[in-house]
Order: sequence, then C-alpha cells, then structure tokens
Amino acid sequence: MHIVNVFEKDTIVAPATPPGEGGIGIVRLSGLKAEEFLCDYFSPSSATGRLESNYLYHGFLKDHRGHVLDEVMAVIMRQPRSYTREDVCEIHCHGGGLIVRRVVDLFLRAGARMARPGEFTLRAFLNGRIDLTRAEAVIDLIRSRSELASNIAINQLNGGLADKIAFLREKLILLLAEVEAAIDFSEEDIEIEGSCSLGKTAGQMMSEMDDLIQSFECGRIAKEGVNILILGRPNVGKSSLLNSLLGEARAIVTDIPGTTRDTIEEDLVLGGLPLRLVDTAGIRHTEDPVEAEGVRRARSKIEGADLVLLVVDGSMSLDNDDLLAIDACRHKDVLVVLNKADLGSLPFPDCLGQFPVVKISALQGLGLTDLVDKISQHFTFRPEVSEARETVILTEFRHKQALMAARDSLGRFRESLVQGMSPEFSAVEIGEALDRVGEITGETTPDDVLDRIFTKFCIGK
Amino acid sequence: MHIVNVFEKDTIVAPATPPGEGGIGIVRLSGLKAEEFLCDYFSPSSATGRLESNYLYHGFLKDHRGHVLDEVMAVIMRQPRSYTREDVCEIHCHGGGLIVRRVVDLFLRAGARMARPGEFTLRAFLNGRIDLTRAEAVIDLIRSRSELASNIAINQLNGGLADKIAFLREKLILLLAEVEAAIDFSEEDIEIEGSCSLGKTAGQMMSEMDDLIQSFECGRIAKEGVNILILGRPNVGKSSLLNSLLGEARAIVTDIPGTTRDTIEEDLVLGGLPLRLVDTAGIRHTEDPVEAEGVRRARSKIEGADLVLLVVDGSMSLDNDDLLAIDACRHKDVLVVLNKADLGSLPFPDCLGQFPVVKISALQGLGLTDLVDKISQHFTFRPEVSEARETVILTEFRHKQALMAARDSLGRFRESLVQGMSPEFSAVEIGEALDRVGEITGETTPDDVLDRIFTKFCIGK
Repeated sequence: MHIVNVFEKDTIVAPATPPGEGGIGIVRLSGLKAEEFLCDYFSPSSATGRLESNYLYHGFLKDHRGHVLDEVMAVIMRQPRSYTREDVCEIHCHGGGLIVRRVVDLFLRAGARMARPGEFTLRAFLNGRIDLTRAEAVIDLIRSRSELASNIAINQLNGGLADKIAFLREKLILLLAEVEAAIDFSEEDIEIEGSCSLGKTAGQMMSEMDDLIQSFECGRIAKEGVNILILGRPNVGKSSLLNSLLGEARAIVTDIPGTTRDTIEEDLVLGGLPLRLVDTAGIRHTEDPVEAEGVRRARSKIEGADLVLLVVDGSMSLDNDDLLAIDACRHKDVLVVLNKADLGSLPFPDCLGQFPVVKISALQGLGLTDLVDKISQHFTFRPEVSEARETVILTEFRHKQALMAARDSLGRFRESLVQGMSPEFSAVEIGEALDRVGEITGETTPDDVLDRIFTKFCIGK
Repeated sequence: MHIVNVFEKDTIVAPATPPGEGGIGIVRLSGLKAEEFLCDYFSPSSATGRLESNYLYHGFLKDHRGHVLDEVMAVIMRQPRSYTREDVCEIHCHGGGLIVRRVVDLFLRAGARMARPGEFTLRAFLNGRIDLTRAEAVIDLIRSRSELASNIAINQLNGGLADKIAFLREKLILLLAEVEAAIDFSEEDIEIEGSCSLGKTAGQMMSEMDDLIQSFECGRIAKEGVNILILGRPNVGKSSLLNSLLGEARAIVTDIPGTTRDTIEEDLVLGGLPLRLVDTAGIRHTEDPVEAEGVRRARSKIEGADLVLLVVDGSMSLDNDDLLAIDACRHKDVLVVLNKADLGSLPFPDCLGQFPVVKISALQGLGLTDLVDKISQHFTFRPEVSEARETVILTEFRHKQALMAARDSLGRFRESLVQGMSPEFSAVEIGEALDRVGEITGETTPDDVLDRIFTKFCIGK
C-alpha cells in the first residue's frame, strides 16, 4: 500500500460483508465518484430525483447492458457524515459469493478501484475522523474471539486509549514548556528545586506508562488467545483429548498409532479464555517420510506454544518415544496429562516430577473439568471481563514498544537532570518521548508503520 | 418448522450476513415488536423522536446494563414496505462472529425468538409479497456458483417462472370452464367437435409443460454443478491432477502411495460449468484399516458421480489395483485420464477401449486444456449463459414433479375425451392438473412441502 495514493482520491470498491452464504451481502464504494457509479447502475423502484442521504432505497442493480444483476437495497451516505468522511455508497444485494463478486466487478468495470485491505478505515484516519488507536480497535473488534477481547476493543474504539495518550501528551507538552523556559534563561542552570519537581513529574509519568505496558500481557492473551499444544508419542490419546475438549469428533480417531499426520488446530473459548488447541502427530522415531513430516511439524509448533499438554498413557510405563516427547518440550511450560487413568494407575514416573499433572480419561470424559481449571489457572494474569470495559488495556505490541521507548526517553531526561546536563539536551529527550507517544494515536506515525497497520485489515473495512 | 407458528407473530431475529470476518455484520429483526426492541437498545447519535422508516441512523447499541456493545448503524423498514411485509429492523454492526452473536443474544434476551432457516422469506411468502417460485429463487441466487445459475435465479426471482405458471393456470381454468359448461348440459354428451378442440388445447399445454420439464436437466446442472470423481489406484497422480486443475496446492502431494486418506472435495467453475471435483484415496487391496476406510469412502462416492475421471499411469502397464479401480466404475460415465504421458507411451490397454481417453501430464501441466474441453463436452446440454436471462429453466425437482403430474392429468383428460367419458370425470383431471401447477407457485402447496422448502434456506434469509 502506498499511503500517498489515497490522496489521488480514487473511488474504491469492496465487499463489506464476510465471504460466503448469507441473507445479505454488502458492496461498499467510497470516493468522489461513488454516487455517480451508483446512479449509473441502480434503478430505484419508486424514488425520483436526487437520492436522499442515508436513505435505504429498494430497486434493481443492472449491468452495463441493462440486464438485472440483482434486486437490491442501496444507500448513499454523503460526506462528511460517513465512515470515511467521503461519499460512501452501499449496495445490499443477496448474500452469495458470486452475486457479490458480480456487483464488485460491475463497479470495477465502471472505473472504481478495488479497495486495499483496511483502505476504508485508512481514509477515515487520514480524513481525521478517527485516530490510529480507534482504527486498530476496529479490526480488533471484528477479530475478537472472547467477550474480554471484544470489551477491550470497544473501550479502545470509544477512545479509552486515545484519551489516555492525549493526557500523557499534554503532560509531556507542559513538561517541555517548563524545560524550554529554562533554556531561555540558559545562562543560569535549572535551579535545584525546579529540577526536583520536573524529575518527579517525569517519574509519575513513567509509572503511568509502566501500568499501561504491563497491561499488554493480558491484552495480548485476550486478543490472540493462548496457543496450547497437545504433544505426546503416538497412540496416547491426543486426538481423543482434542475431541473431548471440543465436544465433537473433528479429528479422525482410530486405534491405529499415527492417524494424525498433519497438525490440527481448533479455536475455542474455555472459561473466558480464547484458546487455540493444536493437535499434533505423535512424536517418535520413524523411517516413514510422511509420518516423519508430521513429527517435524509437531516439533516446529513447540516454540510458539504458551502451554504444552504433554499426554502420557497412565496405564503403561514410559517408553523411548515418551522420553523423546518429554525431551522436546522440557524447556516450555508443561502440564502433564495422564490419560487412560481409568485403566490402572502405575506410580507417577520420576522424570515427570518437575511438571504439574492432571489425571483424565479422554474417552470416558473423566477429569476434563479439572484439566480445564488447571489450564485456566495457568494463565492467571487475565483481567475480569467486566473490568475490560473501563480499564485501558494495551493489545498492540506496537503500542507497548512506543510506550517503552517514551519511558526510556523520560528516564534519560530524569538522569540528565540529576547529572545537571544542559536543558537543550533534556528537551530533546522529552521531544523524543512526545514523538513516540504520538505514534500510538497517529500524530507522528511513519508511513511504513501505517502500511503495516492497515494491511492487517480485512478487505472491505 | 411448523408453518402455523408463524401466525403467532413472534418477533424473530437472526444474523443476515454470512458468518466470519468482514467489515459489516447485519442482525435482522422482523415482527410486531421489532421497533420496540430496537429502540430499547439503540441510542442514535443525533436523531430525536420517532425513527424515520428506511433511514440509516448512526449510534450505539447498548446491552441491558447500558454498556456499549458496538458502534452501529440501524434502520427500521416499516410494514408493508419491507422484506417480510412486517416491521423489519436491521442493526449494522462490526462484522465479526462474536459481535454479531452478542447482538443477536441481546435481542433473544429481550424476547425475540431466533428465526428458523428461511423464516424471513417464509413470512414474505405467507404475507403475500412473493410467490413460492420467487422464494425459491432467493436461495438459488444466494447459492449460485456460476453466472448461468445466477441468471436463471434472477429470471425466476423476477417472476419468469411464476408468469409462465400463471399463464398455464389461466389456460387450465378456461379449459375447466368449458368442460363444466358441458356438465351443465350433461344430458347431451360433449359434441365431437368441441371434444376435438378441447383435446387440442390440452395437447398444446402438455407440450408447453414438456418443454419446461426438459429444461430441468440443464437447470439441475447449472444449479448443483456436476460431480466429477477422480479415481484410480494409489500413486497414479490423482492429487496432482486435482491440484493442476485447481491451480493451487490444496492437497498434500508426496511420492508415497496412499497420501490421500480421506476424500477431498473442491468446487470450481470450468468453462461456465460449476464442478465439484472429488479426489479420493487410491483404490487397492489393503490390510491397513485407516487406508481401507479411505478406499471404502472412495467407492461410496462412485454412485453420485456424474463423470468419473479414471486416472491410469501411462508410463507403466496396468496392475491388479488398476483393474480394481476400472471394475469399480465401469457402469458409470468414465473419461480415462492417461497421466504421466510425458514419461513414455505404452500401447493403450484393450480393457479401456470402451472409454474416451485424454493424455496428460499433471505434473508438467500438459494436456489439461484438452481434458477440460472433454469434460465440458461431456455435459453438452447446458444452455448459454446469455439465454438463461430470458428462457425459463426449471431448477427444482419439485417443480418438475408437479409439472409431470399435471401433464399426466391432462393426458388422462385427453384420453377421457377420446373414450367419450362423462364430463364430470374429465373435470376432475383438470382440477388435479390445476392443483399440481398451483403447488409450484404456492397456491396449493401442502404445509409439509413448505416446511421442506424453507428449511433448506440459510439462517437470516
């Protein structure tokens, strides 16, 4: 994406509803020619004259040869009261993939350009309707998989984070003004008392920043969920465990070791915590290249896991393949799942003594509640759903990075005071902190960062 | 579904956009309390007083505790100018699965009932806004996978079929009137000349019905696509063929026989023809129970296939597993695909002489155009895309059945004339034909048939 292109004021078009089958599909246009394009192809069934803004008209969309493409509803939202602050038109057609594609094609042929991912929201940002944290909240909200994540995103969309950042910026600007005042009297050094009070202010701000920075760990989990890897040698019941947790038979389960050749990933929410459960091929030495590929993929997933459920068969002693599996994950957070607990109980192997353990029978559905509790407890630092509505919680690594850089600048500023350095030097650090904080809301965000933010969006938003 | 329930006038709610991630998600309400429910939870950001019909308002949707759920657009379409001819409200929220679910939950808690599949359209039908063929066209349009199918559905949605049926009904009613006139003078028999003219009219109508009935074969293919099964012994390149046709690596391909354990199905459109390509596990004798299950699934797909692509390795002689595969499908329409044609050419095996053949190299991408042409030619009875816009083409087996029954009644009517039977008897046959034809548009459709039609719909339509 090239940010500069937006100022060319192309009229853009894209489907605004998810792909697939549904009652309604929306195709959205934004730009100078949006109304012209709409009026060229839309015949309202009753209205005459200029279309009224925000009014939903029934009618027919016809292609360039006058053939009816679909019976539709259409609306124009004239600027500046629209999502992008440009003229926006929506065509509500029947919700099938092909229909939507044909409608988009019609406007592409007419001269609209396919919107890039996030381009509608980018325009809303560039046209000053929303700041960058609100833009980022839009996609977080759409992608949210738990009420917690959804509430955090809504709070951010409503300006929770933007207000906090604006508050920090204001304080920094005041601080800068005081330091610059000292520069004007640069013949004298900043007097000791003044220096003390400036240092104190900086310290308070650093601590406010620290609180935000620390909220990132919950924010990340709420937003991305935790990756939980099911690991073990073949035939210990990894797929049965996945299926029990899902409450449905998604993976094929047989009594033949090695049935899961590929990794299977499933998203679910347990106790408010969004999880991605990854079932893997059994770890073992094998000469079979297809199976070996499965084992390789299983191992490659270990690094990214937030927690490994190491499944062992509680009804028999550990074998060499068990030891391979244990070895592969011993540097990670591990919860040992002693499966087939109903088939007898051997003494718990010493080499697993370092890990917490849960006894279950995946087939019988025994011990699953206990397992879910243990998983939940492992991620203790998540906030309550209700808190998320009022508390500002960082969910973007970008925000955390910017705040850490700003805090470091403030730290250097404070240090410079202690060392009695010249106010010019101190001013530079505060200016740096201001820039970093401004990156969060978009005041001072470089174009390549904007690029990266908006290309993460879905098409049509 | 119980049709009678609709008259209870519950207010129903459902997501109207496809599930998944997108810019906009729509939740739709219909019924007496739709407006009340909307106004209870929606705070417009500027409007005051009663919401104007068809006007799209910006605002916030709040839950029962007053917490903001999402920033939304909302619209009410008051009856009778709405999809269902009841009050319809739409909330346009952010297009994520969770947000949409939370909004639906809000209205369920308020007292709305989850709409059954197709219930919005059922209400449109029961409230007399659309006939049954138009209702069926809605779901056909949404599900259409080719321009051909889409155009047929649009034509039907615009009343193409309904008009034709209305025309047939009118003629039948005239015919019935003439016959009933004869009953009034039942002392005399219908005079020979009159009988002749009645018989001729019936014959003309039967021929019109036949044209429609015959259009069903194209209609079915346009709508459902054709099922094409890729069959062969392990390691002849079935998955490579699928991938070449898809132009992407969807199935895992290795040089290990038996990599495809399950069947893989892919939809695509080739030369205007919607296809479902089904790749199967290689057919062979095996003791491995997982692989045997794959072979069983492959065999179970043979019956439903419109065409079998029997893949054989052109670089080596047929072996016993090839013969097994040939045997499994020899009663079907088969196109032999001689793969690995670049690796040498043995004489074409006699036992395949009965089938048409195409030489390809799936890996090299050779001969694929020829293969696509051959597939396309096999289904010669499809109409041109452009025709579908004007020609009425049946796509529902239900319609075909009803027309066949009506035609049979007319046939018996004509027979009764020839045999000089009493006009009362003849009248019954015409009444029967009228009923059957009326089932198509919904005048005389039994409730259980309506049930079956609307349960095929997606939720929210």
